Amino acid sequence: MKLYKQPIMPSGFSCASKNCGIKETGNDLSVFISDIPANAAGVFTKNHFPGAPVILGRKIIKHGRLQGIVVNSKVSNVGTGKQGIINAQRMADAVRNEFQFAENEVMMSSTGVIAKQLPVKLIENGIKGFGSLLTDNPLIGAEGIMTTDTYPKAISLSVGDSIITIVGKGSGMIEPNMATMLVYIFTDADIETKDLDSFLRIAVKDSFNMLSVDTDTSTSDTCIIMANGKKGKVDNNLFLESLKFACIEMTKLLARDGEGATKLLTGEVNTAATDSEARVIAKSLVNSPLIKTMAYGADPNIGRVLMAVGKCFDATVDPEKIEVIINGTTVYKDLDRVDFDEDKVRELLSGEIVNITVNLNSGNFNARAYGCDLTQGYIEENASYYSS
Amino acid sequence: MKLYKQPIMPSGFSCASKNCGIKETGNDLSVFISDIPANAAGVFTKNHFPGAPVILGRKIIKHGRLQGIVVNSKVSNVGTGKQGIINAQRMADAVRNEFQFAENEVMMSSTGVIAKQLPVKLIENGIKGFGSLLTDNPLIGAEGIMTTDTYPKAISLSVGDSIITIVGKGSGMIEPNMATMLVYIFTDADIETKDLDSFLRIAVKDSFNMLSVDTDTSTSDTCIIMANGKKGKVDNNLFLESLKFACIEMTKLLARDGEGATKLLTGEVNTAATDSEARVIAKSLVNSPLIKTMAYGADPNIGRVLMAVGKCFDATVDPEKIEVIINGTTVYKDLDRVDFDEDKVRELLSGEIVNITVNLNSGNFNARAYGCDLTQGYIEENASYYSS
Repeated sequence: MKLYKQPIMPSGFSCASKNCGIKETGNDLSVFISDIPANAAGVFTKNHFPGAPVILGRKIIKHGRLQGIVVNSKVSNVGTGKQGIINAQRMADAVRNEFQFAENEVMMSSTGVIAKQLPVKLIENGIKGFGSLLTDNPLIGAEGIMTTDTYPKAISLSVGDSIITIVGKGSGMIEPNMATMLVYIFTDADIETKDLDSFLRIAVKDSFNMLSVDTDTSTSDTCIIMANGKKGKVDNNLFLESLKFACIEMTKLLARDGEGATKLLTGEVNTAATDSEARVIAKSLVNSPLIKTMAYGADPNIGRVLMAVGKCFDATVDPEKIEVIINGTTVYKDLDRVDFDEDKVRELLSGEIVNITVNLNSGNFNARAYGCDLTQGYIEENASYYSS
Repeated sequence: MKLYKQPIMPSGFSCASKNCGIKETGNDLSVFISDIPANAAGVFTKNHFPGAPVILGRKIIKHGRLQGIVVNSKVSNVGTGKQGIINAQRMADAVRNEFQFAENEVMMSSTGVIAKQLPVKLIENGIKGFGSLLTDNPLIGAEGIMTTDTYPKAISLSVGDSIITIVGKGSGMIEPNMATMLVYIFTDADIETKDLDSFLRIAVKDSFNMLSVDTDTSTSDTCIIMANGKKGKVDNNLFLESLKFACIEMTKLLARDGEGATKLLTGEVNTAATDSEARVIAKSLVNSPLIKTMAYGADPNIGRVLMAVGKCFDATVDPEKIEVIINGTTVYKDLDRVDFDEDKVRELLSGEIVNITVNLNSGNFNARAYGCDLTQGYIEENASYYSS
């Protein structure tokens, strides 16, 4: 498994983005295209207020085949009622017409402000002539799906003769459940739809579902995988391992670029009594505002780690057995040892990556969650997101 | 039920505070005294890492009688092992000696940094001569228990011939469960211990347990009530109603003075399918960083309310039935009506109190939660809390 220095779309895939007039500047519309129909699977937000693209997308993905994905940014088409459904369908139909695709083989997503109707005519006009802009550089496609992301995100990984490429966006309203904000995965390996679906769910469980920027679950979270088979079969186990690896790498990029973030924060929980307890506590670590601000300020307030473990009321936690490790150095081990070296902890917290490990010594289950620090930048972005 | 303009300790109660040298400036040590033993009850944090005062306090409160409470601020005596228990006991013993109280009739609390040993000798020295400082002004007692609180908090309420007085502190690491950060309630009404205990639990359920500043549950949360009976019996129902009212008023003060807060944010959920769903959704509203920043910036991003309701995955939520009301004005009613007046919503959000009401129209249960906005001030305080 090796990440490409420069990401590239797998064989037969291409993408494009442009400004169609929804944003004042910057690209706001992207397409991702396979030159033949591809097997496909997807997972979506569990939020009770799914956007129109999610409502339609769940039906479309049941066919197990896709040839194109169209995404706009700035307006999310959520809380927009029947008109929203019509507008989402119009986005897909415009791509079908432009590229001559079959019914039900175009997925659409929208990201941005909630409860505002989509400027669908701008999108329809933008899609016309999109074919002439297609490129094999996934970073171009990534540009049109950004909201508060500070840079476009795409990674590519080789798997035998094939490639897995992931294009993603994150930033705010990020604690996905069943998927992440917007993530599109493309491969030229030949994988059956039912395997794609199960591989995707396995990979998402330890990656995007363990990501949290701010505890808020978007109404638009979508993760789609397309496999067009151009490079033939690969070993299924190798493919799954590669997919998991790539999803975790993309998860880290999304976490590190959380709104206002200056650091990647990972919470690792070892030797928990159950798998779900390990996950809950790992999430509690990366979600605690007091741990996030501790990481931001490199303030050696490690008692906050005990607090964040301890507030998982339903988990098995024995205070006498807990160990806390920051970036490889044990800072808290038994209840009577509290005189840690403050300057050392300050130093451990001062880098761009803060990894907090908690050993519970209560069982055999481990989990890792991904987040970021909490800074003034988050407040500034979100106190005027709608208005700006 | 009427709040006093100036709070006062009930008959037979007094308090004092001073600087004993833990903080560089400001009072860091308080006592609350009854001149006769009082019936008492208490509730404490559910965090798995309770502080030494909570561990000891749970045993002390079982006797159902208290004559004094001693509290220090700046160091919380949490994660301090056996030495912490010894130090907590020494605080109580020093008060027993100073005031000649019986065994097990002094409660102690500590609030501040976690995982640091208590400077117990400073506290013991400080307690000597405390008797000469006693006053009937509860705001004096409130001064010594403050951490990042911006002002001391106490309220008094008349109940027949009796008085209920509450002294409290909050600010950060505030999502209590079974109690709030530190709250002490005093009354000269004559109430039996078992009634005090049940009244306290009922009052806490709708007040301090519905308070959240930052989703983080402290390891020191403590709420104690003492009734010395000096003014004789009152009607139990009247007492309970008064106690609930006073606890909710104190909850609002604690929420409004959350770290960095500029606004009181209340989340009201009506017509939910169950009581617990109403509470979960109300908490979700006041805990969402995106709603908190929306309130801070008076940014009319009301879709975030839908998001925060929708991310309560286990609750009964029908998107077609939901109504959202901000400070009395309906801003979202049915799925097809999304063209609200942005300037009107900006105005609704611009005051010092932001009340978000969600009608679910799914049942008969209502709940209200109390929180605050999220501002740069929260980040600034918590990125250097330990170091400053």
